[in-house]
Amino acid sequence: MRNLALLTDFYQLTMMNGYLKHKLDEDIVVFDYFFRKNPSNNSYTIVAGIEQVIDYLENLSFTEEDLQYLRGLNFDEEFLNALKGFKFSGTIYGAPEGSIMFPHEPILRVKARCFEAQLIETALLNILNFQSLIATKASRICEAADGDPVMEFGLRRAQGPDAGIYGARAAVIGGCTSTSNVLAGKMFDIPVVGTQAHSWIQTFDSELEAFQAYAAIYPDRCLLLVDTYDTLKSGVPNAIKVFQELKEKGYQPKGIRIDSGDIAYLSKEARKQLDAAGFHDVSIVASSDLEEETIYSLKIQRAAINGWGVGTNLITSSDSPALGGVYKLAAIEKNGGLIPKIKISENPEKITNPGYKKVVRIYDAHNNNAQADLIMLDDEVIDTTQPLTIFHPIYTWKKKTFNRYKIREMLVPIYEEGKLVYPRKTVAEIKAYTAKELQTLWPEYKRFNRPHLYKVDLSQKLWDLKNEMLNAYKEKNSL
Amino acid sequence: MRNLALLTDFYQLTMMNGYLKHKLDEDIVVFDYFFRKNPSNNSYTIVAGIEQVIDYLENLSFTEEDLQYLRGLNFDEEFLNALKGFKFSGTIYGAPEGSIMFPHEPILRVKARCFEAQLIETALLNILNFQSLIATKASRICEAADGDPVMEFGLRRAQGPDAGIYGARAAVIGGCTSTSNVLAGKMFDIPVVGTQAHSWIQTFDSELEAFQAYAAIYPDRCLLLVDTYDTLKSGVPNAIKVFQELKEKGYQPKGIRIDSGDIAYLSKEARKQLDAAGFHDVSIVASSDLEEETIYSLKIQRAAINGWGVGTNLITSSDSPALGGVYKLAAIEKNGGLIPKIKISENPEKITNPGYKKVVRIYDAHNNNAQADLIMLDDEVIDTTQPLTIFHPIYTWKKKTFNRYKIREMLVPIYEEGKLVYPRKTVAEIKAYTAKELQTLWPEYKRFNRPHLYKVDLSQKLWDLKNEMLNAYKEKNSL
Repeated sequence: MRNLALLTDFYQLTMMNGYLKHKLDEDIVVFDYFFRKNPSNNSYTIVAGIEQVIDYLENLSFTEEDLQYLRGLNFDEEFLNALKGFKFSGTIYGAPEGSIMFPHEPILRVKARCFEAQLIETALLNILNFQSLIATKASRICEAADGDPVMEFGLRRAQGPDAGIYGARAAVIGGCTSTSNVLAGKMFDIPVVGTQAHSWIQTFDSELEAFQAYAAIYPDRCLLLVDTYDTLKSGVPNAIKVFQELKEKGYQPKGIRIDSGDIAYLSKEARKQLDAAGFHDVSIVASSDLEEETIYSLKIQRAAINGWGVGTNLITSSDSPALGGVYKLAAIEKNGGLIPKIKISENPEKITNPGYKKVVRIYDAHNNNAQADLIMLDDEVIDTTQPLTIFHPIYTWKKKTFNRYKIREMLVPIYEEGKLVYPRKTVAEIKAYTAKELQTLWPEYKRFNRPHLYKVDLSQKLWDLKNEMLNAYKEKNSL
Repeated sequence: MRNLALLTDFYQLTMMNGYLKHKLDEDIVVFDYFFRKNPSNNSYTIVAGIEQVIDYLENLSFTEEDLQYLRGLNFDEEFLNALKGFKFSGTIYGAPEGSIMFPHEPILRVKARCFEAQLIETALLNILNFQSLIATKASRICEAADGDPVMEFGLRRAQGPDAGIYGARAAVIGGCTSTSNVLAGKMFDIPVVGTQAHSWIQTFDSELEAFQAYAAIYPDRCLLLVDTYDTLKSGVPNAIKVFQELKEKGYQPKGIRIDSGDIAYLSKEARKQLDAAGFHDVSIVASSDLEEETIYSLKIQRAAINGWGVGTNLITSSDSPALGGVYKLAAIEKNGGLIPKIKISENPEKITNPGYKKVVRIYDAHNNNAQADLIMLDDEVIDTTQPLTIFHPIYTWKKKTFNRYKIREMLVPIYEEGKLVYPRKTVAEIKAYTAKELQTLWPEYKRFNRPHLYKVDLSQKLWDLKNEMLNAYKEKNSL
C-alpha cells in the first residue's frame, strides 16, 4: 500500500496546526461528503471508491520522512508530534459502495476530531469524486449498449496510472464486463480482454499471414482486427478465410473488431459477409471514440455490433470530467450535544443542509421501485404504519403521499470510533449490488438524455431547522 | 517505486506471446510516439512526463506474483520465462522534457526488440498523454493570467491520486508557481501553498474571531478567506481590522482570497476598501471554477486580482480531458537495414509518416525565434550554409525559404541500448527550460483563441518516401 498521508491540501495542515494551537483539535465535528449535480446530466450517481477510502484510512500514518519534509515547511515540533502517532479514530457512516445516490444527499458522514476530519478531506474527495464519476459514466454507456458487453479500453488515455487502474475498477462497478488493463485485472480480480493491435497486422507481410499467425496461437479465442487496410475488401474476407481454417480444425472463431470508419455501414456489410459464409455466431466488436450518444445512434441505425470497446470518453468521462463532490461542515459537538452548522451562500444551490443527518429511501411496497429519498436528522423515526407525506424543499406546495411503502436507511456504519466495521467486498460483488440497485429505478430515471428527476426532499424537521438558521443569520446580519 | 509492469493492455501481452511463438520477438522495430491534434485548440503542446517514463522503464520487471497472475490467464511457461528476466534494452530518442512540440512530430522514437517495444506502449502513452495535457493547459492559463502567479488547487477533483500528484508536477512545468498538493510538493520539491477553508471560519463563533485566530498563528503569512458570509460587508472589513492589528505588531499582511460571487466586482470593491485603509501591498487572490477564458475575461474587466488559484479545470483539462497521443510502428529492421512502415487510413490525418525519423527546428538566426519544424529521415543532413526551402505537405505549392537560419535537432538520446543516458532534471529546471522555450515562440502562436498554426513540414526525402509507399499500396490493392 502506498503512503498517501501527504495527499492533502496544504491548507488542511495549516488549519490542523491552527486548531491544535487554539486547543480546538480535539473538538468533535461532523462533515458531509455530497455532490450538488450529477455528472453528464444523469439523474443519479453511482458511489464508487469506498474501499479505496478505507485503504487510505487504514494506512494513514506519517513517516519520519514525511515529518522531516513538514519540518522544512516550518511546522513546529508540537504539530509534528501530534502527527507522529496519527491514527484515524473517527466514526463514518456511508452509502455502501455501488449505491445509487442523488444530489445533496450525504454519501459519507464523518464524525471525528477536528484534527482528523480536516486532514482526510482532500484524499476522500479525490478518491470518491473520480471513481463515482467513472462508475456513473460506465452506467450511461452500458445503458446505451442495452445489454451488449461493454469493455473498458481507456488506459492509454487515462489521466495517469491511478486513473487507468481505479477507472477500470469503477467502470466495471458501473456495468462494464471487462477491461484491457492487466494491472487492474490483477488488483481487483476483474476480467481482462484484448487481442491484437494494428502493429501486429503490419508486422507481417500481409494481413492474411497476420491473421493466420494469430489464429495458430489462439485458435480457441480468435478475434481479428479487420480495419488495418480495407475492412470490407480485405479485412473481413481474410478473417473469413482464417475462420474457415479454424472451423475445419474444430475451433469456434470468436469474432472481428472494427476500429475505424463508419461503424454502422461497415458492421452491417461485415455481418452480411460473415453470415453468407455461415459464421452467424461470430461477433462484431466496435471500438472507435465511442460514448453513449454514438452507441445509441448506432443502435438506432441497426449497426450489427455485439460488443463495444470504449476508451477515452469512458475513462475520462470526457463530457463531464469531474464530479464536484464537496465535504462540508454540518455540526460541531459542544457539551455533549451536536450544534448544527450551515454554510450560507448567495447561490441557494450552495447552501448546505445543517445537522447530523441520514438518508432514507422510500420504496413502493408492491414492486420495490424507489419512489423518493428523504434527507432527515439522524434521530428522526418514520412510522411506516402511517401514510408518509413528503414535500419539495423549494416549491413546498409540491407534495406526495405514500400509503404502501417500505423504507431503507442508506447510510451504514463504516467506521465506529476508528474501528473498521464495514464488510469488505470484491468488485464482482459490488457490481452485482449496483446492477440490483439499478433495477429499483424506473426507466425514466435511467434515460441518459433529459432523464426524469428523482425526488430528494427534506424531512419537515430538517427543513424547519435549515430555514430557522437561515432566517436567524439574515436577521443577525441585517442583510 | 511502484511496480507498474502490468500497467499495460492485455493485447500487448497476447501479441508479445505471439511474437515469441513465431520467433519474431527479437526483431528490432521502431515506434513513434506522437499526437495528431493539440489539446484545447492550442497551437503547441508542452511535453511532460519523460522523467516518469524513465522511472517506469528503470523499474520495469515482473515479480513472481505478476507471473503467477499471468499463469492464471493461461499464458504458458515459455512466455513467463521470457518475462522473468525482462529488462528494457532498447534505444529511445525524445524531446527533452518541457519541450514545445507540434502535431505529427515524433516526440519519442523507440527502437527496441518487438517484445519490449510492444509491452511499454500503454504505460508510455498513459504517462506522457496526461502530463503533456496538463502542462499545456497550465501554459494556456498562465498566458491568460499574464504574469500573475497561478496556483494549482485541483487535487480534490483530480482523476485519482496520481492525477493530482503528476498533474501538479505538470502544471508547474507549464508555468504554475505552486500547488496545494503537499505530496506533490514533497516528491518534486515544488512550492506548496494554502491558508484556510470555509470550515475554519465556521468553526469559530464569528468571522472576526476566525481571522484573529489565524493571524495569531501565522502573523507573517496571513492571507484570509473573505467570502464565507458577505465579502464586502463582512469579510473585507474584518480582514482590514486584523491587518491593522498585524501592522501594529510590525507584520506585513499578505492578502485576501475570494472564492465565490462575481470576482470582477468584488475584487475591485475589495481593492478600494483595502487601499482606503492603506493596504496597497496586500494582494487579492481569486479561486472559483477558473480557467483561461474566465481569467482573460476578468482581466479585460480590470478585476483587481493579483493571483489565481485554479482547480478542476486545470487538473482535468476540462474542455479537452485527453491528449490523443498514439504510438505507431514506423520501421522494422531486416538484414541490418530499417524497412519503413506506414499505417494506411481512409482518413488522411491518420496516415502515419514512415521510417526512422527526426525533428529539426528552424530558428531565425537574428532573433532566435522558431520559424518552422521539419520532420526528416534520421540520416538527412541540412547544409546550413545554403538557403533552405520547405513546403507544405499537402498544399505543396505553399513554400518558404530561409536564408539566415539556425537549426536544432529536437530529439536527444534518452536510452542507448538499454542504458539511460538522459541527464535527469528537477521540476524547477524543467520549468525554467519550458519558459525559455516559450520565449522562442511568436506571440501569434501563444494566443489561446484561434492561434496561428505553426508550420510542421516534411523533408523532400520523407515526403517522397511517404507518397511512394501510398501509391505502391494503392496500386497493389487496386483500390
